[in-house]
Amino acid sequence: MQDIYIHGGAMTPFGRHPGVLAPELAQQAILKALADADVPAGRIQAVYCANVLGGMILGQLIVRDLGLKGIPVYNVENACASGATGVHLARHALLAGQYDTVLVFGIEQLTALGGGTIPLQRNDHKTELYARSGMVLPAVYAMRGTRFLYERDARPADLAEVAVKNRHHGSLNPYAQQRNTTTVEEVLASRMIADPLTLLQCCPSQVDGAAALVLSTRRPAQARPVKVLSSVVVSGMREEADDDILDAEITARAARQAYVQAGLGPQDVDVVELHDAFTIAELLYYEALGLAPRGDAVALLKSGATRLGGRVPVNPSGGLLAKGHPLGATGVAQMVEILWQLQGRAGARQVAEARIGLTQCTGGGIAGVDHAASSVHLLGV
Amino acid sequence: MQDIYIHGGAMTPFGRHPGVLAPELAQQAILKALADADVPAGRIQAVYCANVLGGMILGQLIVRDLGLKGIPVYNVENACASGATGVHLARHALLAGQYDTVLVFGIEQLTALGGGTIPLQRNDHKTELYARSGMVLPAVYAMRGTRFLYERDARPADLAEVAVKNRHHGSLNPYAQQRNTTTVEEVLASRMIADPLTLLQCCPSQVDGAAALVLSTRRPAQARPVKVLSSVVVSGMREEADDDILDAEITARAARQAYVQAGLGPQDVDVVELHDAFTIAELLYYEALGLAPRGDAVALLKSGATRLGGRVPVNPSGGLLAKGHPLGATGVAQMVEILWQLQGRAGARQVAEARIGLTQCTGGGIAGVDHAASSVHLLGV
Repeated sequence: MQDIYIHGGAMTPFGRHPGVLAPELAQQAILKALADADVPAGRIQAVYCANVLGGMILGQLIVRDLGLKGIPVYNVENACASGATGVHLARHALLAGQYDTVLVFGIEQLTALGGGTIPLQRNDHKTELYARSGMVLPAVYAMRGTRFLYERDARPADLAEVAVKNRHHGSLNPYAQQRNTTTVEEVLASRMIADPLTLLQCCPSQVDGAAALVLSTRRPAQARPVKVLSSVVVSGMREEADDDILDAEITARAARQAYVQAGLGPQDVDVVELHDAFTIAELLYYEALGLAPRGDAVALLKSGATRLGGRVPVNPSGGLLAKGHPLGATGVAQMVEILWQLQGRAGARQVAEARIGLTQCTGGGIAGVDHAASSVHLLGV
Repeated sequence: MQDIYIHGGAMTPFGRHPGVLAPELAQQAILKALADADVPAGRIQAVYCANVLGGMILGQLIVRDLGLKGIPVYNVENACASGATGVHLARHALLAGQYDTVLVFGIEQLTALGGGTIPLQRNDHKTELYARSGMVLPAVYAMRGTRFLYERDARPADLAEVAVKNRHHGSLNPYAQQRNTTTVEEVLASRMIADPLTLLQCCPSQVDGAAALVLSTRRPAQARPVKVLSSVVVSGMREEADDDILDAEITARAARQAYVQAGLGPQDVDVVELHDAFTIAELLYYEALGLAPRGDAVALLKSGATRLGGRVPVNPSGGLLAKGHPLGATGVAQMVEILWQLQGRAGARQVAEARIGLTQCTGGGIAGVDHAASSVHLLGV
């Protein structure tokens, strides 16, 4: 199969950007990505814009002033998996030989909307009923957390350790919104959002950010070119949900397909950027991604394997918990981080000798996972 | 290149659907399309949902209850060209061999939003300034209309003839929102919206609708299988706008590429569904699509060539002017109409012996065409 290379990538710092319009933020990331890739704008043949809440025909507006007019622009939405879906669809076109070089970017400006308060659509009685009953995402993850503590004989401090790890990583990342470290005690003492999840166990949603990648079928003139080894997007569930709310089935299915596509297994992965929107999510995804056998997530965390310096550092960027989660930008930014890690460009948070990286994001499903999207990508040098 | 076939298609009637949620409307079209294609849900490998204003992760919600869970769902937005963009991206994946059979649908429920009043995003100072100054779409097209009357020595009645033709066609179409015929006098006497465009020269926006298509690389067991001969999406402008507001450059560029891709020319086209959001638009698109030489749009209209029974009937469905314009659904519905026309299934509005059909939609660009999207497809038996 045709190789797909990442020629370059960039992101804006994630955080509050008052007075900056979403297009300006996206343009910052795009211009830096083009420079990083050393690709002139005229060589970009199509643009994929990942965004959730920014409105109609946003991508065209953003590239209008960058010398990228005239070419096809596709606006893509898949909740928290929007950015990864943009890369996935770009890959289809590259594999089909429709283009040889394309731009993918993600953008979200949540502070302009009051911050992560996603307006309910009158689209679905079930979702509306569940959401009005309080089953919003923090509550959904809190129920998983409660069940996890019960089934795994774990302690709230085990959940808090995820936040401590990722905030430590984030303190080393100039692109992260939250750059101070924290302690288990501070995490547990922070304001309760949905028991057992305290404030510091939930990713910041008062955040803006953008990230961009240049993808190409041409091999770049770089010492360590990074390839997209696999790209998977799935949705919902194949079967009706069973009662096991600790089984992140959609993510496990995406991961299985991604490993098969790349001819790799979890043991081959050197660095991971995963969707830690809440601390409990990171633990569940350890198991869904095959990094730990079922039941061993806490043991993996406590072993230090997923910390910088460990066997398979998870979220060296700080993850969503430290970086913040500007929806459309997140999936693209995960891949920019892995690009930098695989090329030894990650500064103080560099993972030593990383050759294979994995990104994962799973979103949607406010009232359960039955209409969610999940994406897993494997990148490698 | 790999052939892409349309195995079946369907749409809901366009109109007001009070008390029906958007997903229910879409599901009606999808179930009818699957039945029309004689493809079981289990053979669909991916879903493309085209929508502009329906909110996050809408496609997953819509297919959740139809036995289509688990597979990838992609939500696509490109203003009025959203539906055509969904087909275009599906074609990339089919050409890449990622799937052999996929579903594309478009859905919009404008009545639930107050009808076509598109909320302004705080994304762009220029657009906001222009829009607040009154440069909304009817005004933009009114300026083109005024210029057209001046340059072409045409009369307001010439514009009105477009509405008369398309309302006549719509009167024969059970899927159209407006099913009464009209006269030049009635069109000119209807309420002025933006001089010279009266109410009956603007497409209805208080409308809901959905349309769906099944696309496959497998040749269907049908007497007259319909192929996608070309599929083009472009955006914005290659060069800065000149002062010629009668030059629909973006549409002309998409059409040129579509003809080259199919190895065909305008003279080969037997039937056209084009984006007559306003009467003046249809005349400008005659020229942009090469159906008439520059300057001859009114002559083509007056010759009767674009009326049912003429040489190249345009908008036999009634077009946007009679059918209404539920944004995400429009581009898909255009292709469903052409599918039916090419297979002799269009009932009272059937175009005789049609073998090649063209669809076109151009959207966005509230404050000018510099961030618009345009799409042209050629279908053939």
